[in-house]
Amino acid sequence: MSLRYLTAGESHGPSLTAILEGLPAGLPLDSSIINQQLARRQRGYGAGPRMKIENDSGEILSGVMAGLTIGAPLAIVIHNRDHERWRGKSIQPFTSPRPGHADLTATTKYGYSDLRPALERASARETAARVAVGAVCRHLLAQFGITIGGYVVSIGEIQADVSSIPLSERFSLAEENDVRCPDLRAANSIRKRIQEIMQVRDTLGGVIEVVALGLPPGLGSHVQWDRRLDARLGAAVLSVQAMKGVEIGTAFSNTSLPGTQVQDPIHLNGEQLTRKTNRAGGIEGGITNGEPVVIRAAMKPIATTLKTQPTVDLATGVETSTEYERSDFCPVPRAVPIIEAVVAFILADALVKKLGGDSLAEMHPRFNSLRRAHLSDLRMDNNEQQWWSE
Amino acid sequence: MSLRYLTAGESHGPSLTAILEGLPAGLPLDSSIINQQLARRQRGYGAGPRMKIENDSGEILSGVMAGLTIGAPLAIVIHNRDHERWRGKSIQPFTSPRPGHADLTATTKYGYSDLRPALERASARETAARVAVGAVCRHLLAQFGITIGGYVVSIGEIQADVSSIPLSERFSLAEENDVRCPDLRAANSIRKRIQEIMQVRDTLGGVIEVVALGLPPGLGSHVQWDRRLDARLGAAVLSVQAMKGVEIGTAFSNTSLPGTQVQDPIHLNGEQLTRKTNRAGGIEGGITNGEPVVIRAAMKPIATTLKTQPTVDLATGVETSTEYERSDFCPVPRAVPIIEAVVAFILADALVKKLGGDSLAEMHPRFNSLRRAHLSDLRMDNNEQQWWSE
Amino acid sequence: MSLRYLTAGESHGPSLTAILEGLPAGLPLDSSIINQQLARRQRGYGAGPRMKIENDSGEILSGVMAGLTIGAPLAIVIHNRDHERWRGKSIQPFTSPRPGHADLTATTKYGYSDLRPALERASARETAARVAVGAVCRHLLAQFGITIGGYVVSIGEIQADVSSIPLSERFSLAEENDVRCPDLRAANSIRKRIQEIMQVRDTLGGVIEVVALGLPPGLGSHVQWDRRLDARLGAAVLSVQAMKGVEIGTAFSNTSLPGTQVQDPIHLNGEQLTRKTNRAGGIEGGITNGEPVVIRAAMKPIATTLKTQPTVDLATGVETSTEYERSDFCPVPRAVPIIEAVVAFILADALVKKLGGDSLAEMHPRFNSLRRAHLSDLRMDNNEQQWWSE
Amino acid sequence: MSLRYLTAGESHGPSLTAILEGLPAGLPLDSSIINQQLARRQRGYGAGPRMKIENDSGEILSGVMAGLTIGAPLAIVIHNRDHERWRGKSIQPFTSPRPGHADLTATTKYGYSDLRPALERASARETAARVAVGAVCRHLLAQFGITIGGYVVSIGEIQADVSSIPLSERFSLAEENDVRCPDLRAANSIRKRIQEIMQVRDTLGGVIEVVALGLPPGLGSHVQWDRRLDARLGAAVLSVQAMKGVEIGTAFSNTSLPGTQVQDPIHLNGEQLTRKTNRAGGIEGGITNGEPVVIRAAMKPIATTLKTQPTVDLATGVETSTEYERSDFCPVPRAVPIIEAVVAFILADALVKKLGGDSLAEMHPRFNSLRRAHLSDLRMDNNEQQWWSE
Repeated sequence: MSLRYLTAGESHGPSLTAILEGLPAGLPLDSSIINQQLARRQRGYGAGPRMKIENDSGEILSGVMAGLTIGAPLAIVIHNRDHERWRGKSIQPFTSPRPGHADLTATTKYGYSDLRPALERASARETAARVAVGAVCRHLLAQFGITIGGYVVSIGEIQADVSSIPLSERFSLAEENDVRCPDLRAANSIRKRIQEIMQVRDTLGGVIEVVALGLPPGLGSHVQWDRRLDARLGAAVLSVQAMKGVEIGTAFSNTSLPGTQVQDPIHLNGEQLTRKTNRAGGIEGGITNGEPVVIRAAMKPIATTLKTQPTVDLATGVETSTEYERSDFCPVPRAVPIIEAVVAFILADALVKKLGGDSLAEMHPRFNSLRRAHLSDLRMDNNEQQWWSE
Repeated sequence: MSLRYLTAGESHGPSLTAILEGLPAGLPLDSSIINQQLARRQRGYGAGPRMKIENDSGEILSGVMAGLTIGAPLAIVIHNRDHERWRGKSIQPFTSPRPGHADLTATTKYGYSDLRPALERASARETAARVAVGAVCRHLLAQFGITIGGYVVSIGEIQADVSSIPLSERFSLAEENDVRCPDLRAANSIRKRIQEIMQVRDTLGGVIEVVALGLPPGLGSHVQWDRRLDARLGAAVLSVQAMKGVEIGTAFSNTSLPGTQVQDPIHLNGEQLTRKTNRAGGIEGGITNGEPVVIRAAMKPIATTLKTQPTVDLATGVETSTEYERSDFCPVPRAVPIIEAVVAFILADALVKKLGGDSLAEMHPRFNSLRRAHLSDLRMDNNEQQWWSE
Repeated sequence: MSLRYLTAGESHGPSLTAILEGLPAGLPLDSSIINQQLARRQRGYGAGPRMKIENDSGEILSGVMAGLTIGAPLAIVIHNRDHERWRGKSIQPFTSPRPGHADLTATTKYGYSDLRPALERASARETAARVAVGAVCRHLLAQFGITIGGYVVSIGEIQADVSSIPLSERFSLAEENDVRCPDLRAANSIRKRIQEIMQVRDTLGGVIEVVALGLPPGLGSHVQWDRRLDARLGAAVLSVQAMKGVEIGTAFSNTSLPGTQVQDPIHLNGEQLTRKTNRAGGIEGGITNGEPVVIRAAMKPIATTLKTQPTVDLATGVETSTEYERSDFCPVPRAVPIIEAVVAFILADALVKKLGGDSLAEMHPRFNSLRRAHLSDLRMDNNEQQWWSE
Repeated sequence: MSLRYLTAGESHGPSLTAILEGLPAGLPLDSSIINQQLARRQRGYGAGPRMKIENDSGEILSGVMAGLTIGAPLAIVIHNRDHERWRGKSIQPFTSPRPGHADLTATTKYGYSDLRPALERASARETAARVAVGAVCRHLLAQFGITIGGYVVSIGEIQADVSSIPLSERFSLAEENDVRCPDLRAANSIRKRIQEIMQVRDTLGGVIEVVALGLPPGLGSHVQWDRRLDARLGAAVLSVQAMKGVEIGTAFSNTSLPGTQVQDPIHLNGEQLTRKTNRAGGIEGGITNGEPVVIRAAMKPIATTLKTQPTVDLATGVETSTEYERSDFCPVPRAVPIIEAVVAFILADALVKKLGGDSLAEMHPRFNSLRRAHLSDLRMDNNEQQWWSE
């Protein structure tokens, strides 16, 4: 089996819609699972006015009967609460593209006669649908003891130091503060920095770290380029609006270290093979190694700024300045659950591919029988081999 | 149309094989196009002994008749020159997994009884097949004036400064030296650093920058997560052995700047919309904007080191040290054409999707008629719109 | 580009939902386009009581702004009007699987503890979503002068003879009668036969013929198995509930003729290559040849019969008889627009793949420049060729 | 997991190549498995001269080490023995398209300047690569006791009657005679009919029946259109050269029977649910039901006939007659293993999707634990259910 999802919906249209399919049957599910994550997406310091409007809730239109998934596609709808104010209303033309958005590129590609269709679909509003999809996926993973969390590791030039905080504590610490940063000292500086940037009418980006705990080894594969788990995770992260970089573990800073300092030596703990480090970010050769999977996303400061930027009015053909379209100053904290969501989808898909299984009842014993990095699961022949015969 | 490729082959098996399909008809092609890129993959300072053996050449087994592609799949075979030494030979068991490789993860996943099947397919030897595929793709792109090049921007802690070198010159400067670094001062330091690391029997990683010039705006799309060009490029880069991070432009360092400093203001030059900067790395909203596409890959120092690392012998069940398997000290310079190749595939696919077109003859006029960021191509209605009627 | 769609929804759940994506921008669209086809799906002699309830209408939730597609995914919702009667209501257990349905197979696969989840998703109710998707696709095709229609050629043992009726007239003749059969004499016999079968509480199947007119040559491809248009059409047809056979043209009866009698000789009419016959059903080598594409689907008499059939009660473990679940006696006439719909999707996808094109404005000139079977478009070198050089 | 394959290669090019990937590790495999099926493809009455030349053998270039698959892609090469006679040779222009082939359609699509590139890739020679792929797939299925066989049920107007021959005997009876027809009386008539058709320089088509025995219930799914097993099988069959129709069971003739006569009533045999008939052809609701899967393919009489047919010389622009290109008179018997092969691929993929499993060792216990149509595996709650809560 395998999972697929598509989203649909414009920022101010009637609703966002997602179809997620390939789920096993027998997963207990209701909309509260989704709404909990949608609420997380709307919490965070420095939110613009849109966040107050949203207060999203998802409705599951299919795929669940008597509280259980039935193996059939889920359709999830999230109504856009401010759609009513747009329906039937005449809207000023929007003809000056904002640098850094899809305004100009999508218009060039699709030939719109006003920029609004570009931004309506390109808007990060769409990520609500992805959070809904991801909520179901993380709920599936949770049935197998796999949990996903995330937090902010930097905003602007402020770097958090989370190295001394155990992974499992980072999630809850992050959720407890409005900038989703487990390093409380950095959290204060970040809050201050956001306040400053609001005053200068600018925006801030940052780096988000998302971690998956409890994964079995053996998800993903090295055998073909598009089966590698790191490639799939990377695509998922970069497919999120405003994400421009991704690394597995601290890949970029690892490039400045010698090779012996970026691997994770293998030790024995009884019969269990263990690692004392996780420099690989949980993936070796495109396959999970049983350590936490650590993914870091670089989110650019979003392009819509109160401070104007030079642009060209495509209607008049003259240089002008961008006009403000309602937006956030620093959406990084609120983007944490979005990255978690897209990661959850990829991992749930990888799990379903590894286990097959059309129902939880079928998946559980298979999961429990998976080979782990125990000596007992790794039986070697220890004979000479003629790998290619004559 | 769309392009697909699959590779097959083990490091010491008879050959690597790739099938690439979806190519238009009418593209002049012979194996020299491929061999030129294969040769680039084998040049570079600090190569291990394998590189001397390889001297690869690709043979096109199908899809080309009378020197032209016919729209049919290409099969490309690259013979492994040292296969003969392995055929029929008994090989010592390999039972102590090297940290950082697929040795342990692939064995856990697939249940091998010796580690060699893991490393045979996971080996970077496979990238020769990808370079062959990419060579054809870049050759297709070149018919439309699109060129791809790359270079090293850092190795270990040595950072090159290429900011003052025009993009177009960077490629040729890089090719002229054996560490593929256009900053000649940095190149010297890199060479020295590699020598040092060889002496301490360790390895070095680095960062590679790949640039595509001449792309039309409008490749990729914002409309669905898996159609975004940055997501597809990211997946391609991370699917390459030892690549653990990827960014579009300098995404990670951009996260520390305010929003107004990481966009690319839009100006007019006659009727042409222009940018003076390219902080977006050529992609806005998942779509090319007509500026150079800039992708940076973080390559980890490869895991196979002469200096041993702790591991466990799975045959005896005791802790031991890794044994040396032939490898490189710093493959970063030689990885440049590999990243170029995987980028070329994604861009060629995006071009074919934008143009359709089953032959070059069909694609050329379509390419010439593409909307560009000219005022004349971007006609706005400039009327109020009722976007959603009552 | 390429089209994709997914449907979701259960027979008595809140709604059916479809997401269709990959559409070009600039297509005028509103829900009337969809509703017109949904209405066709509900008309027809011998409808069971469900048809009266349905009276479906589709709502487009996204992808259209100011009356035009914007290149973004369409979400289409069709509310199930009788859902309200099921919500909150306790339903008798359903534990005796009906032969010929997914009752037993889906339950075995997914491990349900009641058969209802199987039939809810497997129900032909889902085809309403496909008709909605197909309505948009045929509307896209219509912009290029491509039309799709269909009719009944047999029901039970009654065979229509349509050979003397021109293709273009068959569609309207079929729409004019309630068994969708252009042969009016056969239509009468069919009506009588359905009445008989209702009296004996049984059901009837039949054969549907769907025809696409105005297709350009060159859709589909011979180069890879899964690019062949006939393979894709076949999959689409067989994916429809109760369809068990498919042929391009009259393939099965053609097997009894000698080869010279089942090809379509090529003639000249001025500069235009023409055919006087269409035995190939419009596809040669997996590619359209410019003649009408003719697809015939074998629909089995549906499995739910008032007359009971032997089965086993899975709750009690004893042999029993099927109970009646509301259904039709002869859904063949109403299935005509369903087959048209799935055919429309495949053809629209093939057109979009051939043309690329992200907007109608981009597609139109490309369409007009397509090579046709004119001498002027088919320039031969007429030289000896060395196809594979030494 | 899932299986994929691509083929490459032209009829007179150096070789056919296939890559098959997604196979589990641990499958014993060598080229004899492939060659056995390739030999079957070359046996049969009425073969043209090509068959004598072919005598194919496949070489496995990757994916197998020490006699076992390693989970990595297989590359299979089949050398074209007559390529040497074409290499470097000047070939007469071929400019008069044969009706019924891809000659004209592929040329129109791809813009060739000679018809040969069209026929080189479109040729049924390519099916040798598919038979090789299918040989591996059937070998995988055989590990689970699943076998696939096939036979001719009609050629021209000669109909075999196999109804009284048990399925399992049909395969061996068919292999024993040169027209692959288990009804020996019909076999004689067929042989005579082929002789006649050769004398009148014409060709014959027919109907092939392929059967898969030992399949577990639960392969395929009803939940999404493109997951239905019948749709996938149909696509596979129609993707084979010259196949124009496909049915599951005797679908077309079933359309003339009332519904109660085309289902398979469910009975109990101890705890086992059984069927006395198999009118559904082993698939209900797009899912296997545990009965034999029966697929019937309509193969048209091939288009290349010694008797000429009207066509147009595209070089001179005048009406002319087809010239003979070497071909067969009745390839139906030899097409049996081709249909088996493409069916084997789809079924192996469905099995791998159901089981997941990256190795045979992982798949075997999962297979043994699959739910079957036993009362013990089908536990019903037998309570009223509120399927959609208020």
